[in-house]
Parts: sequence; C-alpha cells; structure tokens
Amino acid sequence: MKQKITVLLLLISLTVFSQVKEEQLNLMPWPQNIELSEGSFMLTKNFKVNITGAPNARIFVGATNFLRRLDGRTGMFFDQGFITGLNEVPEAQLQINCVRSGKIELYDDESYLLDVTSNKITINATTDIGALHGLETLLQLLQNNSNSFYFPVSKISDFPRFTWRGLMIDGSRQFMPIDVIKRNLDGMAAVKMNVFHWHLVDDQGWRIEMKKHPKLIELASDGNYYTQEEIKNVVKYAADRGIQIVPEIDVPGHASAILTAYPEIGSKAVNVNVGSGEKGQQLKQIQTYSVERNAGIFTPTLDPSNPKTYELLSSIFDEVCPLFLGKFFHIGGDENEGKDWDSNPKIQEFKKKHNLATNHELQTYFTMQLVPMLKKHNKELMGWEEIMTKNMTKDAVIHSWRPNEDIGGQNSLANAVKGGYKTVLSNGYYIDLVYSVENHYSVDPMPKGVVLSDKEKARILGGEATMWTELASAKTIDSRIWPRTAAIAERLWSNENVTDISSLRKRLKTVSFRLEELGLTHLKSKEGLLRNISNNQKSEALLDLSNVCEPLKGYTRNKGGTEYKMYSPLTLFADVCTPDASDAILFGEAVVNFSNNKTIENQVIVVSYLNKWIKMDFDLNTLSDNAPLIQPLLPLSKSLKDISEQLLLKIDKKQNIDISVLNELLEKCNSKEHADVELAVYNSLKKLVQG
Amino acid sequence: MKQKITVLLLLISLTVFSQVKEEQLNLMPWPQNIELSEGSFMLTKNFKVNITGAPNARIFVGATNFLRRLDGRTGMFFDQGFITGLNEVPEAQLQINCVRSGKIELYDDESYLLDVTSNKITINATTDIGALHGLETLLQLLQNNSNSFYFPVSKISDFPRFTWRGLMIDGSRQFMPIDVIKRNLDGMAAVKMNVFHWHLVDDQGWRIEMKKHPKLIELASDGNYYTQEEIKNVVKYAADRGIQIVPEIDVPGHASAILTAYPEIGSKAVNVNVGSGEKGQQLKQIQTYSVERNAGIFTPTLDPSNPKTYELLSSIFDEVCPLFLGKFFHIGGDENEGKDWDSNPKIQEFKKKHNLATNHELQTYFTMQLVPMLKKHNKELMGWEEIMTKNMTKDAVIHSWRPNEDIGGQNSLANAVKGGYKTVLSNGYYIDLVYSVENHYSVDPMPKGVVLSDKEKARILGGEATMWTELASAKTIDSRIWPRTAAIAERLWSNENVTDISSLRKRLKTVSFRLEELGLTHLKSKEGLLRNISNNQKSEALLDLSNVCEPLKGYTRNKGGTEYKMYSPLTLFADVCTPDASDAILFGEAVVNFSNNKTIENQVIVVSYLNKWIKMDFDLNTLSDNAPLIQPLLPLSKSLKDISEQLLLKIDKKQNIDISVLNELLEKCNSKEHADVELAVYNSLKKLVQG
Repeated sequence: MKQKITVLLLLISLTVFSQVKEEQLNLMPWPQNIELSEGSFMLTKNFKVNITGAPNARIFVGATNFLRRLDGRTGMFFDQGFITGLNEVPEAQLQINCVRSGKIELYDDESYLLDVTSNKITINATTDIGALHGLETLLQLLQNNSNSFYFPVSKISDFPRFTWRGLMIDGSRQFMPIDVIKRNLDGMAAVKMNVFHWHLVDDQGWRIEMKKHPKLIELASDGNYYTQEEIKNVVKYAADRGIQIVPEIDVPGHASAILTAYPEIGSKAVNVNVGSGEKGQQLKQIQTYSVERNAGIFTPTLDPSNPKTYELLSSIFDEVCPLFLGKFFHIGGDENEGKDWDSNPKIQEFKKKHNLATNHELQTYFTMQLVPMLKKHNKELMGWEEIMTKNMTKDAVIHSWRPNEDIGGQNSLANAVKGGYKTVLSNGYYIDLVYSVENHYSVDPMPKGVVLSDKEKARILGGEATMWTELASAKTIDSRIWPRTAAIAERLWSNENVTDISSLRKRLKTVSFRLEELGLTHLKSKEGLLRNISNNQKSEALLDLSNVCEPLKGYTRNKGGTEYKMYSPLTLFADVCTPDASDAILFGEAVVNFSNNKTIENQVIVVSYLNKWIKMDFDLNTLSDNAPLIQPLLPLSKSLKDISEQLLLKIDKKQNIDISVLNELLEKCNSKEHADVELAVYNSLKKLVQG
Repeated sequence: MKQKITVLLLLISLTVFSQVKEEQLNLMPWPQNIELSEGSFMLTKNFKVNITGAPNARIFVGATNFLRRLDGRTGMFFDQGFITGLNEVPEAQLQINCVRSGKIELYDDESYLLDVTSNKITINATTDIGALHGLETLLQLLQNNSNSFYFPVSKISDFPRFTWRGLMIDGSRQFMPIDVIKRNLDGMAAVKMNVFHWHLVDDQGWRIEMKKHPKLIELASDGNYYTQEEIKNVVKYAADRGIQIVPEIDVPGHASAILTAYPEIGSKAVNVNVGSGEKGQQLKQIQTYSVERNAGIFTPTLDPSNPKTYELLSSIFDEVCPLFLGKFFHIGGDENEGKDWDSNPKIQEFKKKHNLATNHELQTYFTMQLVPMLKKHNKELMGWEEIMTKNMTKDAVIHSWRPNEDIGGQNSLANAVKGGYKTVLSNGYYIDLVYSVENHYSVDPMPKGVVLSDKEKARILGGEATMWTELASAKTIDSRIWPRTAAIAERLWSNENVTDISSLRKRLKTVSFRLEELGLTHLKSKEGLLRNISNNQKSEALLDLSNVCEPLKGYTRNKGGTEYKMYSPLTLFADVCTPDASDAILFGEAVVNFSNNKTIENQVIVVSYLNKWIKMDFDLNTLSDNAPLIQPLLPLSKSLKDISEQLLLKIDKKQNIDISVLNELLEKCNSKEHADVELAVYNSLKKLVQG
C-alpha cells in the first residue's frame, strides 16, 4: 500500500496547488511576522530532516517527534527513523540550524526563522528552543488538497511577547498521574508555552515522595504521589520540550495534608485537660488534622512561632529543590485567614514579641524565613499575591490571581510592578472555572488604564493558566484545559493587536483537533462518558444536548465546597459538557444572522436547530427508559423542546403566541437547577423571543 | 443535584423490579455456579463496604477502586471514601470476609462465594484474590431500570478451571508506556486473568533499565525503556490486582538489541583482513549489529560457545530477577534458525567438542546453562516450545505457540505434558493476528482427540493471549487486545461447556463497554483516528466503512516484515478497523434471516444496509475532496456500492440481473489490495448473490 501511495503522490506533485491565503492558516499562537508567496513544498515519503550547528540534544528528540507526528497525520511512511546526531542527512529537505544550546530559563532566545521554498525548508534559530517552536509552526502550516499534503511557500519570523507563558496543574486535590502531566506538557509545547507550574501540595494531599519524611506520603497522600524518579523524569521531559517546571508547596495555609503528618507544627490551640501532678504535666497538647476531602478554604495553618516548622520546611526544601532544574520555587502563601493564629495565645505572644502588628506581617515574617532556605538551592521565591506586604523581599515573584473587586479595586499586578516586584498574571486565566474562551482571550497581562514605566512593564513576566482540580479528574482534565489554553498561549506569545475573536474561534477548531495527536483526550473523552450516561445506547440525542449545555461556571457548581468531595464521581453530564458549547455558538451565529436579515436561508438554519431539539427531547425520553443517568437531564431537554415548539410557531407566524407564555418558557431555559449545567443557548433564544 | 437524586431514589426504591433472568446477565467469564432468585438489592448513596478476616492489604485498594467504579457508573455520590482497614463500617451493606492473605502464585485459592440478598451482600473467600474476583462479578451483576441501579438477588459460587490465565504484551517491538501496561492490568483483573507476561527484550529493543550494563539502554532502546522503579511499581500494581508478572528476555535468538550493545558475544563470523606482521595480528574480529527496525526472523544470535555470553547473562539475571516477585522467568528461545552458528567455525568446533549433533542440541546446552542462573533467584525457567528437546530439564515450562502443521502434525502441548513438562498454550490465542473472537473462543487448552492421563492433564497450566506489537502502537493496542481477550479469559476460567457463541457476542458487547471505565481506549481511540483520516470532517460515512472492514489477518498485512518499520505510522484506516467488524456481524445475521425467511421485515433490514453503503460511498467521495487519507479507501467503498446497487435490483426483482456481472462485482469485494483491510461482508454478500 505504501509504495502505491508514493507513486500516486509523485504523479500528483505535477498538479497545480491553489494559492494559500493568510486567513486559511490555522496557526496559534499567531506568529509575529508572516509572508506568504506563491507555490508549495510538496511532502513525499523521502522527506528528511537534517540538523546542524551547536544545539542541545533535545532537538533530536523534538525533530524525531516532529517526523512521527507528521507521518501519523499524512501516512507517508517516511524513510527516516530516529534522528540522533548532527548532520546525518546533509541533503535533507528540512534543514534546522541552531547557533547554540538553549537554556531552560526565562529570557533565553526563543525566536526562529522559518523559510519554506518549493524544494527546501529551513529553520534558523539561535537556540534549539527556538527551533522547536519553528517545528511546531511548521506542523501547523501543513495544508492539503484532495490527494496530497504540502506546505505553502512562506517566510515566518517569530518570537514571544512575554517570557512567562505558563500552565498550572493542581495535582494535589485530584491526583493527576504522570501520563496526564506528560501529554499536557506536549500540548503546552505545541502552543509554545514554556512554564509548567506544578501545584504539588494542598489541603487535599501531599504528592511528592519524601525519603527523609516518609510520613508525608504515608499519611497524607492516600497512596497517590509522584516518586522522585518520576519527578526528575518529568523535569527532563519538560526540558526536552523547552519547558521549565515551577514546583509549588503551598504554605503556611492550605496545610491540612502537611499537618496530618506533622500535627506538632500546626497552629491550632487545643485545650487539653492536663490533669494535675507530675504525670499530668507531661501530657502534651494533642492536635489532630486529617487530609481534607472537601473544597474550600480551611483553617489548618503552620505555626510561624514554632522553630520546628522551619526545621521541617528547610529539610523538605533540601530534598525537593534538587529535583527541579528551574530557578523558581512557588510557596503558595494564599488564603491564609489566620483563624488558628488568632486563637492561639502562644502565636499572639510571638507576634507581640516580634512587633508584628497584623497576621499579614506575621505571614511576611514566616515567608521571609523561607527565602534563604530556597536561596541555598539557587531558587527564587514565588508566591500568590497575598505574600506581597511591605517587608517582603523584592526578589520574590508575585503571582497575581484575585479579581480586582476583591482587593478594593486595586490591581495587584500594577501594584506589584510599581513596588519593584516581578509578577505573573493568573487573574482572568482560571480555566477551571469553565468560562468561555473569549473571557480569557480578552485578558492581557499588560494592564490597561494604568501608567507604567518601561522598567515597571518589564517586570510583568507574563501569564499563567491555572487548572485547579476540585472538579476535574484525570479523565476530564484535558477538556478543561484544552483548547482554551491555546488561546491564552496566543495572548502571551503573539502581538497584542492579535485579538479577532472569529479568527480565534476558526483557528482553535483545527488546533484543538491537532492537539489530539499528542494523546490529549479533550475530544475523545466525551464519547466514553456519554456511553456511560446512556448505558451504552446510541446517544446522538445525548450528544446534541451536551452541545448546547455548559457546566455551571465560577464556583457555583460545588456550592460550599461540599457537594463534591475529592472522591465524588466526575463521570456525569456536567463533566461531559465544556465551555464554548459548539451548537450554542453556531445557533448564536444563526440567530444573529436571522435577526439582522430575515431571509428564508437564515430562517431555515434557525428552524433546523429548533426541530433538532424537539426530536432530541423525544429521543432522550426513549433512551431514559434504560438509563437512570439521563433522568436528571430531561427537565433541561424539555425546557428546550417547549420553547423550541413555541418559537417555531412564532417564526411561522401561523399562530399568535402569547408573549407571557413565551417568556415563562424562556425563563425555564435560564435554570441552573439541573445536572449542574446551564443551557448555553438561553441568550440566543431570548433574542428570538424578543425579535 | 446529588441530594435530589438520593431523594428520588429512595422514592423509587418502593417500586417493583422485574425479575432478572440468567440470559440477561452480562457476566464474563461465566461463573461456575449461579442461582438467581426473585428480588433485588437496591443501590443507594449510603452503600458501604466493610472488610473482615485476615486479608492482604490489596483488598483495601481493590474495594476502594470498586466503590469508585460503581460510583462513576451510577452517579450515587457514595459517602464512603477510602477504605484503609478492617471492620471500618461493621453495619455496611457489603461485607467482604477473607480467611487469609492470598499468594501471587499459581494454584492459590481464587474461589469466592457471592451472596446477594435484598438488603445485604456478602463475599466470602479464602483469599483476598478470590474476594477481588467476587467484586468484579458484582460489578458485572449491576442492573438498572429507568430510574435506579440494583443487583439481582443471587448466589454465585465460582473458581477457575485453569490456574494460568495470561496475557502477554510485547513492549519491545513497539514500546508500550507504563500507563498502557497498567490499564491493561486493570482489564485483565476485570476478567479474572492472573498472569501478565511482559515481553521485554527482542531484536527491536531492550526495555529494562540496567544499572550494571547501561549500554543496553544507551545503545539498544532508543531512549524507550522501563526504569527499575517503574517495573517494581508495575509488579506491585499487578499484585494488588492478584496478577503475577512473568518477565521475558528472549535468548539466544532475537538478539539484535543485546548484540547492538555487546557485539562481542554474537555468533556472526566476520572475515577480517588482519594484515600481516605483529600489528595486523592484534586486530580483533569486529562484529557489528544494530537495533532491528523491521519485523520478521533475524539471524543475530548469542554465541553459546563464548563464556562471556554466560557471564553477561548471569549478571543480567542478577539485576533483573529481583525486580519481579513471581516464580517464572521466560527466556524466549524461539525462532533461532542457527544460521550464524552454522557459519561460525569456532561454534562448529564447540559443537563437536561437546558432542552436540544439532543446533537444537546446542541450544539445549545453552538453555541449560541458564537454569542455575535463574534457580539462584528462585525462578523457574520458561521458554517457547523450541526449548523442548530431549535433554531439557523437566522443571522448564513449555510455552506452546506454533500451529500444528508447522511441526508435522504433532501437538507440542500434548507432547510436552507427555514428556513430563508443565505447559501453557498460546497457539490459537495470537490476538495480534486480528482473527475473529470465535476463532480464539473455540480453542481449548485441553487437547481434543489425544488421550492424556490425569497427571498429564494437570500439567496443562492454562493459556495465554499474546499481543505482539509489530502492528500496534500505544494508541491502538487496546483495540487489538480488547474485547477479544475477555473471551479467552472465559475459556480459561469457565466450565469447558460454556461455548455458546451468540451468548458470548451478546455479553461481550456489554463487557467491552464496561472495560472502558478502566481507562482502556479500545472503543474511543477509533474516534480520534477517524478524525485524523477525515481531516476533521464529520465522518459518519467513514465510521460506516470502518464497521464493515477488518485489518488483513495473520501475517498478510506486513508482507516480508518490511512494509511497516517499527516507526511507521499506525494511524491509518487499517488501524481503526478491528476484528469482528460490528456491521458485518449484524449484516451477516440479517442475511441469514432473510435467506431463511424472505419476509418483508427481513428484507427491509438487508435493504437498509445496502442503501446505507450506497449513500456512504457518495459521502466518502465528497469527504475525500479534503482528505487525502480517504483516497485509498474509495475503491473499497465503490466495490461495496456497486454490488449493493445490483443486489437491490436483484432483491426488488424489477430487473433481470446478469449473474456474471454480479459475480464479477462480488469478487471485487474480496480484494485485499486496498488500505490493508478487507471487506468483512464478502461472505454475506456472496449468500445474497447466490440466494
């Protein structure tokens, strides 16, 4: 078969390719400069890669992976197998040249020049990291007609706008196995992200194997943790993709897991009847903690007045720091409400003694003790924005995460850079909250309406998408991260004026599809979950419903943090649904078109959706006879069917519709009471009702 | 939402459940004894598990996993989280009692008694391994009506027919990452298999991290290997599921990878012009080997006359044996044609000196040297049937794999047990060759037509499905293993008279669907691959075609072993298709029904398939405008369309059909020339042509 394809393709190479236009390209992040010319580079079985210069060996891994991905897409059966050294195939059609080995750190040169001519492709880059970016762009540049695959003749010069383009994954609340981490690192590399922030410790679990402090995994991990070898392996895997890893151990709050193993360094004051006499005096205060199973903000907090706290942390850092190559260590520092500090007389005394007026000052005192522990390992301290108080070292990197209104209208990002701190933005990039891609895409790390000096601007390192896992399992996390994170990657890499939403949506569709080849499950996980909900019945109707529903946004799905425990099932309809529900977007466009121009063509599209939903409701009722998990969805489906029927009558104008009835049915579509999802077509339906 | 479901379910618990019949149950392997009674055990949010007796701690892992799987299926939001000790919930509805800790070895007690009453479930087992089997049966027993989930009141007593119920995965030809191995171990446990044979070394790669012999991974793994920690972790993971692991290092043939690292112990005789004079005399014979990229049988073979061969192997076993807990070590021993032995004068001399008349005797000599190396680590030697020659130790386990005709009509299995050897059957269980599930299901380890004594019969330990990976990647291997391996598991566990194919097919459909909850990708990988082939176009037509096509069977897909190299793409149509193509089976049934009884109802079904394929061909042609990978499929689709059109006319009887034309079109459907697949509907079409 292979031989035949080759012959066929050679014949076809004589045919003419139509000229590719810029708007046809599905590049993301969009490059800084792109020049398209006439002509094409035709892909054949003999396509080979050659590497020259003085790159890091990661380019051999990257180029081999590039070949396999391209071969998987095109079925070319390339002759070339593994690339393991310099100048192996001097005559190769793809020539990669790197001046020097890239460093996995901020500000190293990530630029590249990609030059496609009709018979040769060259990637020139200062570093292999830049060359890897060039290979990803080349993969995105792939075009096809009916018979063959080709690259358009083009010149692309490219470099990032921000140096910190991050993704955080919370491996504490729900443990995320190594393969989840690795495939997401591949996804990051595909959209040129370069910082993986690994949230490893929180109230719900300690996830790092500790050889000197085994109690942390024995008592506080439920057996789910990363071994040190696995961590080192992931660090290497990331470095091979140009990605640095920032580990996080969240202290002094979010400490339930640490304190489950080491209750003696907790802040909780316990009144114990110590009895009387000598024996009684020897009884110690007994504090007990347990691994948290709910979501939320909890009181367990390390005791900043206890020297043992610092001994333990210092020893932990001594063990954990060497596992990571990067320069930054994230110590959390968020959401410490200080309740246990307030109620502990010993800690109150300590505050007085050290002239620490507030809990914030006490936390700063605590955090400052960690700086030298990290410095010893050449690490800079990074923390969530709460660490930024007046005495905090200027070396610390401030991770801005809270919405402005929470901190009295002040922007912590602008404050941080004005205060002399380097900073990274995550407020607006909380992808776990399942907002639309547009929300995230519109957020720029460079604040608008604030005057900053060039020096201050330079302290804005970039941004980071944060994937918290209260409501994501290893099976669903990819669909919470992708494809929206690709849009954030574009915001952080591309020119600030690349903001067109319809272009984004169009490109994202292809980018999302291509990300799948990396093993990401954001598309295909849906099918398996639907099969479970439908009890293995053919589930077109269920798919249709999922395409107009979105999981409840923000923090509304898990009210009080107790509806879902960390072991609750994440296999239900809300877990199937995703932000940017596909049919809701298409229906929205159809309604806008119809509202603007009431042609028959536009009407037909709107009507076809309404009819589809009427049929869907019928089918779902049938399916539900043998599928208990469909029952909770029927009210949603019915609401959509009911309004659809009335809207059909309204559009048909064959019957006078009572607007109050219509409004009542419409409002039923605005419910958040069913199956933890909402109908994402509500606003479009409203337009039709009012139109 | 959760609270509401609970309330709803409590109400529903008052409703009546219909009596479940045996043929409704989708149990596999089918239990030895089952008694169904009236009534049901209703599943609620308060369902809890309690464990008593003296089990191994693996039961806590197993029971926790059981709870999570059941919760994932039913969306109950069980209160119970992690189970970590004995008698945690004495009042629990599910009581598990184990007399003692199970041993991960052959012949330990795997039986269990499962007793479901309307308000209590008990699992009684001698060992926790039996109890784990009971939990899997309970999961398979789950029923539902429209609103709730329940277990039918029943008593099941169960135990295995054979003690060796194995699956082999070849991690050498295509490297299979740890997550692939783990999810397949979960699949094995779900169908009560208990031996995982891990083929770790072959011509195409050495996959075990070696601390004393790092050259093996540096030079012969392409960077793809299992670390020792990962191996130990997998061994633990398997043991937690009642599975023992048998590692394989294939020697003395299949040695390209070993010899790439250690050419000095190879058998190849190289004539080197050693020049003249003293300098020339010092030149050594230089042999070179390289990691094999093709499939097939190759000559590189260890030198049995070289003491260094045994030194190295002994040292390797010293490092590898302790990684595994089980009693068996597989040393391969297959397909050594001895070509390099024949052409090496030194080896010929060695044979003479040791009175070894044939290469088989020489190989026995070689193999016997390994016995004490393994015995030192309490391991018994196992090998493919070629190791069975007259001087082979009776302690060796013979792995029977060749079809009878290859060895002159003799059955190696019967010969082995008659010769005093324990034996395991794999001939007939080569699942990589993509034959129908019926083929494998009909193969019984107990040979028919051969008279064996009870002692001889007892030496037949069981059987093993073998998954070689010349044509399977990490993304497709699950669909080659599952669901057919569940049928082999049933053959090895259940009573020999459980042989009904239609019952098997019906149950397998549900078993296959449920296996998905373990992370197995055999169903959902198809969708992603089709997306790639269709170039992200809606691909109902492509799915339809895949449901009537099967990959070429046996060794015909990769003729000469060179069409596919180990890095060739396995992302194409043949990789999407599976044995037992679903529509081919349904169409086959429809044709049989129609042939037997030419009612309108039966005709309608046949006609609907024919019409579907006519439409499919039209749609595929449209899709192919933007999908080069569809082009090679169009001839298949056209053949099916052409015959379908003529058959419609024939069935309609509105037109006289030229039978020679019909036969010609039919034969076009019997082609193996396109896309490495065949139309699995050929025989059914033939029936229609001739009917």
